[in-house]
Amino acid sequence: MREPSAGEVGQTVPPVPLFDHRRRVELLQGLMADRGVDAMLLAVGADLPYFTGYEAMASERMTMLTVTPDSEPVLFIPALEAPRVEADWLEVVPWGELEDPIALVADRCSGARRLAVGDHTWSAFLVRLQERLPDSQWSTASEITSQLRMIKEPSEIDALRAAASAVDRVLARIPGEIRFAGRSEVDVSRDLAEMTVEEGHETAAFSIVASGENGASPHHEPGNRVISKADLVVCDFGGRYDGYYSDVTRTFVVGEPSPDQVRAHGLVRAANQVGRAKVGPGVECQDVDRAARQVIDDAGYGERFIHRTGHGIGLEVHEHPYIVEGNRLALKPGMAFSVEPGIYLPGEFGIRIEDIVVCGEAGRDDLNEAARDLVVVG
Amino acid sequence: MREPSAGEVGQTVPPVPLFDHRRRVELLQGLMADRGVDAMLLAVGADLPYFTGYEAMASERMTMLTVTPDSEPVLFIPALEAPRVEADWLEVVPWGELEDPIALVADRCSGARRLAVGDHTWSAFLVRLQERLPDSQWSTASEITSQLRMIKEPSEIDALRAAASAVDRVLARIPGEIRFAGRSEVDVSRDLAEMTVEEGHETAAFSIVASGENGASPHHEPGNRVISKADLVVCDFGGRYDGYYSDVTRTFVVGEPSPDQVRAHGLVRAANQVGRAKVGPGVECQDVDRAARQVIDDAGYGERFIHRTGHGIGLEVHEHPYIVEGNRLALKPGMAFSVEPGIYLPGEFGIRIEDIVVCGEAGRDDLNEAARDLVVVG
Repeated sequence: MREPSAGEVGQTVPPVPLFDHRRRVELLQGLMADRGVDAMLLAVGADLPYFTGYEAMASERMTMLTVTPDSEPVLFIPALEAPRVEADWLEVVPWGELEDPIALVADRCSGARRLAVGDHTWSAFLVRLQERLPDSQWSTASEITSQLRMIKEPSEIDALRAAASAVDRVLARIPGEIRFAGRSEVDVSRDLAEMTVEEGHETAAFSIVASGENGASPHHEPGNRVISKADLVVCDFGGRYDGYYSDVTRTFVVGEPSPDQVRAHGLVRAANQVGRAKVGPGVECQDVDRAARQVIDDAGYGERFIHRTGHGIGLEVHEHPYIVEGNRLALKPGMAFSVEPGIYLPGEFGIRIEDIVVCGEAGRDDLNEAARDLVVVG
Repeated sequence: MREPSAGEVGQTVPPVPLFDHRRRVELLQGLMADRGVDAMLLAVGADLPYFTGYEAMASERMTMLTVTPDSEPVLFIPALEAPRVEADWLEVVPWGELEDPIALVADRCSGARRLAVGDHTWSAFLVRLQERLPDSQWSTASEITSQLRMIKEPSEIDALRAAASAVDRVLARIPGEIRFAGRSEVDVSRDLAEMTVEEGHETAAFSIVASGENGASPHHEPGNRVISKADLVVCDFGGRYDGYYSDVTRTFVVGEPSPDQVRAHGLVRAANQVGRAKVGPGVECQDVDRAARQVIDDAGYGERFIHRTGHGIGLEVHEHPYIVEGNRLALKPGMAFSVEPGIYLPGEFGIRIEDIVVCGEAGRDDLNEAARDLVVVG
């Protein structure tokens, strides 16, 4: 801490914004120029809040940010949403209920040949833009925006760490506070969601509870199955915390586990450990996947690990980079993603252990610190 | 009720599905043939559950239904989601984590020249499909699907009515159970959301609470403003009930209203009444808008009614038909939509009164029956 300089004491200091959106747009414009993209159109999805701080509602009333390499960005927004925009550095163009926003955006982009459109932008908007810009070539915005969004800023890592710590606290409470035996998956899922919010999340985004044979479906929708003794229960939950997501999975056992359950769980835990240990700068994404998969392959369960090892996380639960065979992207410091190997045995049970890690300057930074043991619950 | 026939007593009767998805697909195929659309591609959004009963997660892992006029529909789905599909009449093609689903869909559509894509389908998928199908012409699926979805089946109207009745019950509870004065908008919003679920909704989808000058922003995000005496408070809330949405708005006053508030509220109530009264088969959507707007125009507030009069509702909160100037679509029996005029006075207050109505065989069917008076709350 430094001494306040003359005139500074008692002076009103404007709050330092957590994120410098304007700087991010400048970086984006540089990348666009490098790649010859004339205009980028961002609608709903996380690119828009990443670059502006404004999050649009998914709506038939189009909100769209246009960015070109060498002029100020413009946010086209339904007039009735305009009062919700706080970014005073943006040119905001409110459009009225009887105007055609597609025509406004197309006019703004006239002359642009190579355009990129936000990945989650509704196709209805793209189809109508293409009618008005028939000679244009289109690509996906994430080819460029992910280059920035993948490398988390320190404030973003802080937010992800806070989110991860919050779900770690939920995990610590589970054995003492949640009863599994005799209750339905839906009931346990509701408990998890409530605790996710109690521990500081703005919202509980998902809370998968997959018991017994349901555990063999990785994205099982919690249902009315009543959990009973000897069930394995996959709990995969998370939420939004200061705009950033948590996402963690642990597998519990109701009462004493069988030797098969213990063995399979140990394998997944080892795969998780080996996958995380592989993380470091310069390591290809596919090598993290391979490292985790090898452990399960070697034990003869390779066919039962039916999904990629992980996904990036940030303003979205799933974003770049994807930890999957074929992804030769080299990890860089600041990249945040899940490592979540699993084994799924149809008709029997499933096991998954998931943690969020950040690639560090050397090695990795574990955001989740909760134990990975097969914990017995009642 | 008829007498059971021989052999029927005690026989296990399979449950009658509430909706005949297969029949809906047949109707869709007929419309596609009429309009010369060779293939329709439906991903996330309500078209997919409307035609299949299956609701896809918004995900970078593509789920897509392909429909052609003269062959069986195919659902391409990530292998790890496949266990969640229950429609046994559908051809389901699970794709593995290392496959390219875009290539699978493009192969299926090879030869198709005119394609329609679901309005909410992510542009990332459309851009990649267009790369593989460079000679294709694209349109939006809703140009065709809305022709079916707009005309609600009796079971759908039942669901919408149940949803509307549930929010009507919340409205009836508000004056006795929710304290406004001295509390923040966020707190009141949370109460509304909880009551929305208590009254039978699966989820509370939105609960706008806009007090005092905040009421002048139609989609105001509930904030920390503390509600006080003499505030008007716009409460616009709804949720999902058996898959269908409720959406209702009433404006309350904390303590005694001022003469200006009473007058403006009376105008909006009259506009709501006149708009609903206009509804009937053959009436154009824009005529419902004009009828409601005329009341507010005549009183000199025309400039302060800053949005369209309404939107269709069903599997989505906003869908066709839109009740807006320029929409010459003639209402037909079974169309369900909101009538929600408002007056917004920047720096002062806002008022909106919203109900869901269904166009009947003659005249209208009001789904919301809650009183539209300016109700005093504490």
